[in-house]
Amino acid sequence: MVDDPVGAFVPGDPVTVDGAATGPLAGLTFAAKDNFDVAGWVTGVGNPDWRRTHEPATRTATAIARLLDAGATMVGRTVSDELAYSLLGINVHDGTPLNPLAPDSVPGGSSSGSAAATAAGLVDFALGTDTGGSVRVPAGLCGLYGIRPTHGAVPIDGVVGLAPSFDTVGWFARESLVLWQVASVLLGPDPGGQPPQDRVVIPDDVWDAADGPVLDALLPAMQRLAVQVEPVEMARLANDGLETWAGHFRTLQAREAWTLHRAWLEAVNPTLSLDVKQRFDDAALVTDTEVAGAQAQRDRITSQLTELLGGTTVLAVPTTPEIAPLLESTDEEFADFRRRTLALTCIAGLAGLPQVTVPVASLAEYPVGLSLIGGPGTDHQLLALAATVTRPAD
Amino acid sequence: MVDDPVGAFVPGDPVTVDGAATGPLAGLTFAAKDNFDVAGWVTGVGNPDWRRTHEPATRTATAIARLLDAGATMVGRTVSDELAYSLLGINVHDGTPLNPLAPDSVPGGSSSGSAAATAAGLVDFALGTDTGGSVRVPAGLCGLYGIRPTHGAVPIDGVVGLAPSFDTVGWFARESLVLWQVASVLLGPDPGGQPPQDRVVIPDDVWDAADGPVLDALLPAMQRLAVQVEPVEMARLANDGLETWAGHFRTLQAREAWTLHRAWLEAVNPTLSLDVKQRFDDAALVTDTEVAGAQAQRDRITSQLTELLGGTTVLAVPTTPEIAPLLESTDEEFADFRRRTLALTCIAGLAGLPQVTVPVASLAEYPVGLSLIGGPGTDHQLLALAATVTRPAD
Repeated sequence: MVDDPVGAFVPGDPVTVDGAATGPLAGLTFAAKDNFDVAGWVTGVGNPDWRRTHEPATRTATAIARLLDAGATMVGRTVSDELAYSLLGINVHDGTPLNPLAPDSVPGGSSSGSAAATAAGLVDFALGTDTGGSVRVPAGLCGLYGIRPTHGAVPIDGVVGLAPSFDTVGWFARESLVLWQVASVLLGPDPGGQPPQDRVVIPDDVWDAADGPVLDALLPAMQRLAVQVEPVEMARLANDGLETWAGHFRTLQAREAWTLHRAWLEAVNPTLSLDVKQRFDDAALVTDTEVAGAQAQRDRITSQLTELLGGTTVLAVPTTPEIAPLLESTDEEFADFRRRTLALTCIAGLAGLPQVTVPVASLAEYPVGLSLIGGPGTDHQLLALAATVTRPAD
Repeated sequence: MVDDPVGAFVPGDPVTVDGAATGPLAGLTFAAKDNFDVAGWVTGVGNPDWRRTHEPATRTATAIARLLDAGATMVGRTVSDELAYSLLGINVHDGTPLNPLAPDSVPGGSSSGSAAATAAGLVDFALGTDTGGSVRVPAGLCGLYGIRPTHGAVPIDGVVGLAPSFDTVGWFARESLVLWQVASVLLGPDPGGQPPQDRVVIPDDVWDAADGPVLDALLPAMQRLAVQVEPVEMARLANDGLETWAGHFRTLQAREAWTLHRAWLEAVNPTLSLDVKQRFDDAALVTDTEVAGAQAQRDRITSQLTELLGGTTVLAVPTTPEIAPLLESTDEEFADFRRRTLALTCIAGLAGLPQVTVPVASLAEYPVGLSLIGGPGTDHQLLALAATVTRPAD
């Protein structure tokens, strides 16, 4: 077990697995979120009652197996928000990992420990899952590269999900090359031959969704990318407003989460933090009519976004609309952060699109991430584009 | 032509060449040092008399052609120290490029413009040449990734050299992924299958060769690499001292430079800056006996270093022993910087080894680079290892 000054790893969870002696990731170390199965060990998903009521996994998640085969060594399993159903990174059972770059603030979640371990340099990269932003948000708040790949592009078997039509396996790294090397193992090698993504737009309602100082901090990176602010595109796509999109997302996510976890919740009546419990209670009340309506909107949004991004166009999006909330924020402030953030993260989530977040700036020492969203299957192109955005601080 | 607020590009040199529409580098832009030939244009090598007395090149350097074929677009040619025979980055004819991260200091040379253009974000990467440190030094001083590959691993035809048994084509990038992508084009794809380089040592005489504050700044990165300070290895290798090694390097470089440029120097009697002229005047006086003695020492050093690094061992070396000298330094201070720096850069130079420099720290806002030197042909492994060293500033 590695030293853990930031509380990134699940207390008492001893999972370590040596990787193959050679391979493209030989010599690299990684951690995986507490919802990835490792054969012989109980997966916790951030909740003691889950841990208590589940048997050791009989097999290892395919994503982990691929990394081990490629030579990477797993050094531990990392703290998750309970059932991965939050964006804050707070866990009253396993502890809230420290945000190494903003110690007075939340690390973001639900893949909080994976982000903290990577940002603190305890591992070279880490696996998380991203349903509604659970990789992108902690990557942005902890000053890391992070990717939510195209939905379905990385096998998710052996992972405790939340909402299968949104769930993805994502990963964090401090360095663009490491993010890419892991992509080449989990997604397969760069297919190559595609035209470069040469048009980057930021829809005006995306622009309006973020704090002014966050946008100011992102401006130099957007200039390097020659980002065009487009008043038209998204107004057409989102004439109902991004917060309405987030509402569709929440409805569908809630129904899927309830379908997935209902039996266990009713059988065990687990101790859950209030906000997570409230989310499941609300989920139980979502009606079939609401689901059908949200699904119809999701289909429309997906088809419009896929058309917009079908060529060589990329969306630029602030990864989060504000910097990391202080640990001492009120419940209302936390809820506000979640609501505003979902309005940005739901875009890739609803349409199953790949999104890469890049640590491009800081605002009063707090990391600020810029995200790029591409068409389905453009994950490698996005990663390459992401590596052109940064420059050393000056 | 791109905007050039840092004086990185050769004044009046209009060379731009579009890359192929697709390829692994499609969408990336680059610049090349003023000693790379482009068909139809006169190569300048930083000196007006050279420019005046040479015809346009009849073909394009292989390294540039490979990049263009891979989709990268060349946007200009960058300022070089005269005949690439300096480490400072000062050029009285074409101007001294600004060090974007340390504007009161030299950018380092001789590939000064390539470093400045990359650090300022004017290009995604840039080509330079490295004989005695001309990529590694400006990369270190400008806060960039830089690589001097294994000698002979990248074709150098179509490049005006200085000392052929030392000359290499190297490159700069702000991002580890871009450095890697260019490597995969210029060196060919990662052969794969090698064991990881898992032992990093810093010989004690290398340690002693650098300023204390520079070493202090490098310590966290060395800890992340688990660098071991080894009192034995290099004492055996360099019982004559690294400055003696640098002396062997200077003798051999001088003879080769004189052999290469003597005819032109005697025919044209070019206007050269005093320090470069002095170096050629001294070169003319190097005796065959001195060359034979230095060559015998070079053979010994090469064989010992190759043995030491033949397994999975890597040397850690401060890229430069001190931060970037102020522009207003005295000639003596500049000469001292060159002498001390060569004692570190001559190691890879003498033995033809690959060296990657990583921007890991800063010292009072001045960039500090940590270098990794591996065995011959381990370029890809070194690049992968280099990407594990950094973390975001905190």
